Amino acid sequence: MNNEASSRVSLLRSSSDAATRVFATILTRSPISRADVARFTGLSQAAVTKAVTPLVAAGLIDDTLDSRRHGLPGRPASPVAVVPDALIAIGIKVNPDELVGVACDLTTRVIASQQPSLSSNEPAAVIDAIVDLVRSLEDELDGLGNRLASIGVSVSGDVDTSTGVVRESTHMGWTDVHLGTELASRLGQLVVVENDVRALTIGEHWFGVGLGTASFAMVTIGRGIGSGLHLNGEVVEGAYGVAGEIGHLPLTSPDKICACGRRGCVEAVAATAAIVATVSAAHGRPLTVEDVVALAHAGDPAATAAFNEAATVIGTAIASLVNLVGPEVVIIGGEAVSNFDLFEERLLAAFAEHAFGTAGRCRMIVRPHTFEDWARGAAATAIRSLVA
Amino acid sequence: MNNEASSRVSLLRSSSDAATRVFATILTRSPISRADVARFTGLSQAAVTKAVTPLVAAGLIDDTLDSRRHGLPGRPASPVAVVPDALIAIGIKVNPDELVGVACDLTTRVIASQQPSLSSNEPAAVIDAIVDLVRSLEDELDGLGNRLASIGVSVSGDVDTSTGVVRESTHMGWTDVHLGTELASRLGQLVVVENDVRALTIGEHWFGVGLGTASFAMVTIGRGIGSGLHLNGEVVEGAYGVAGEIGHLPLTSPDKICACGRRGCVEAVAATAAIVATVSAAHGRPLTVEDVVALAHAGDPAATAAFNEAATVIGTAIASLVNLVGPEVVIIGGEAVSNFDLFEERLLAAFAEHAFGTAGRCRMIVRPHTFEDWARGAAATAIRSLVA
Ligand SMILES: [Zn+2]
Ligand SMILES: [Zn+2]
Repeated sequence: MNNEASSRVSLLRSSSDAATRVFATILTRSPISRADVARFTGLSQAAVTKAVTPLVAAGLIDDTLDSRRHGLPGRPASPVAVVPDALIAIGIKVNPDELVGVACDLTTRVIASQQPSLSSNEPAAVIDAIVDLVRSLEDELDGLGNRLASIGVSVSGDVDTSTGVVRESTHMGWTDVHLGTELASRLGQLVVVENDVRALTIGEHWFGVGLGTASFAMVTIGRGIGSGLHLNGEVVEGAYGVAGEIGHLPLTSPDKICACGRRGCVEAVAATAAIVATVSAAHGRPLTVEDVVALAHAGDPAATAAFNEAATVIGTAIASLVNLVGPEVVIIGGEAVSNFDLFEERLLAAFAEHAFGTAGRCRMIVRPHTFEDWARGAAATAIRSLVA
Repeated sequence: MNNEASSRVSLLRSSSDAATRVFATILTRSPISRADVARFTGLSQAAVTKAVTPLVAAGLIDDTLDSRRHGLPGRPASPVAVVPDALIAIGIKVNPDELVGVACDLTTRVIASQQPSLSSNEPAAVIDAIVDLVRSLEDELDGLGNRLASIGVSVSGDVDTSTGVVRESTHMGWTDVHLGTELASRLGQLVVVENDVRALTIGEHWFGVGLGTASFAMVTIGRGIGSGLHLNGEVVEGAYGVAGEIGHLPLTSPDKICACGRRGCVEAVAATAAIVATVSAAHGRPLTVEDVVALAHAGDPAATAAFNEAATVIGTAIASLVNLVGPEVVIIGGEAVSNFDLFEERLLAAFAEHAFGTAGRCRMIVRPHTFEDWARGAAATAIRSLVA
């Protein structure tokens, strides 16, 4: 970090609770009038002005906007906005076969993006690859590289964000990997480690669908079936680091064994690998995901039955989640939404059958997240850590 | 309300966000040092003092405590505490056959308690009975009656707290009963209407087990199987008024029909009525709850099997809840905990089987709530409404 960037980070880290809330509000709602900042934070206009002044002086906030030009007619004057490239964050999503990395400005606009493949899943090799990727993204950033303020890394599985430990990741084959401390010592910088679906949820909350909603659930379908919950103003982290494990709700027959070892889990019939295995067995030969999708689109009975069963259990799982936490919106994402036509009918029917009362009124939105979106979620986690 | 009480309520209702947080912190943690109030609220000590001064002047807060006498050795001086009887709240739990009403001080200490039976479940008759009960509790309060600041009423089912409408209560046989507005116009006072399990959860959060925990779930077993969630600093209300419907998770066989009309709900095998029906059918004669409990304690195979099945599905449901939201503590309450020995072994085994990773580390606490505790929950809801 250069001096300017590091003084910005110091300012944010040493801010009062009120100043932090002011910056977070401006960050996610720019441009915004000072009156609206006061309204959202519950602070007086005087307190907002007091908080904004040092942020403007540090170059994090711009208060020289012309209010008419920024489409705020009729609102009180003096709108403020975040200076997007005042600081840069890097977000990296770790997949079994590759890393997806992005460098983003403070609004999670992607400035640089790289997707190197992994030669090994061994923690040491993945850590080397992450360090290389960070360096390579910094190079690509050129003049902005010295504004790098924070790094977020997301991994599927049981992640303890407070210690940066990946306690269990079936997809990576990891147990108790101290990713946060290893990366911090290699990179000389704080690294936030987060569960991948929660990181995507944080991204949607800060800069996506979640912004205008009081509560939402993100459900991802594909390789795994995961979920992230955003309730009462924050992502649900789980008191012991685990939450959102919709893929391991015991909603199917106990004779279905899940990759986690438990019986009857949602993933045991609804994860991509489970669907592929079922259809391969029916056809007596090993099939790929693409084969199975093509068979289903061609009306093959075994493939159709497998997708129907997966869709029914996913819809039932979403109803269970909705009955428990009553979100305003459910966002369905994950790789498998590229074939959402194979799920839609049965998924919605099972949801309607089991959703309880008005909880079933929640809007359902299907969002085809790109791999880059997942990395942006990790970057959003890193940006959030600057003001938390 | 007398003038003194009404000026206290006005002060609380017109308070700034900061002053409200200060009062809520003192209310739930009295006695507490000003330094700790600052720490919990994230405000400066100067801001805390500014907020405390009018609360002291109004007689809501006592700042004349001797810190040594109140067991705060070593902490900074000037502890403050709520004045318990500065205001009074009434809480009423509506059951199909009776009302349970309590008058409480600001710490939900019960000052008066009455339990009139209901002659009818008709909304109009129940509203009459609630009005009578409020008047009768006020009489019993004698000198303190004119300090009544708020009234909370809790009912099982789908309750829209924002409008005070009981949209659906199977236990009461109600649909779209405008309980809040009816009672407010009859009593000339704001009435908070809340789902009964959520009210109990609010009570546990404000004055019970929940106070020292970051997150918890309340699960009630008995007539219904319900739950309340406390996450990220607040009770989960549900965007459309419904949340915590653990009793209607589809975790049992689809050939079990629930009272709600859906298939495979937890309540279809685990509600008291379902257990009684199963054992009655096995014995070919109508049995009471007491009969069935006695049979199970005597080792009757049909009764034992019914309790085992109920316990297994409840344990599975708690694991599902825990996998999704990862609470620090699960509190098990409800009438059926008086026979928790009939549930314990299978419930804990099913929980252990399906809880995912570290989420399973949550502590489980069994709490035999009295009927009065449920009414105290409604009173806690009323007190909370003064500072929300
Ligand atoms: Zn599983
Ligand atoms: Zn049901």
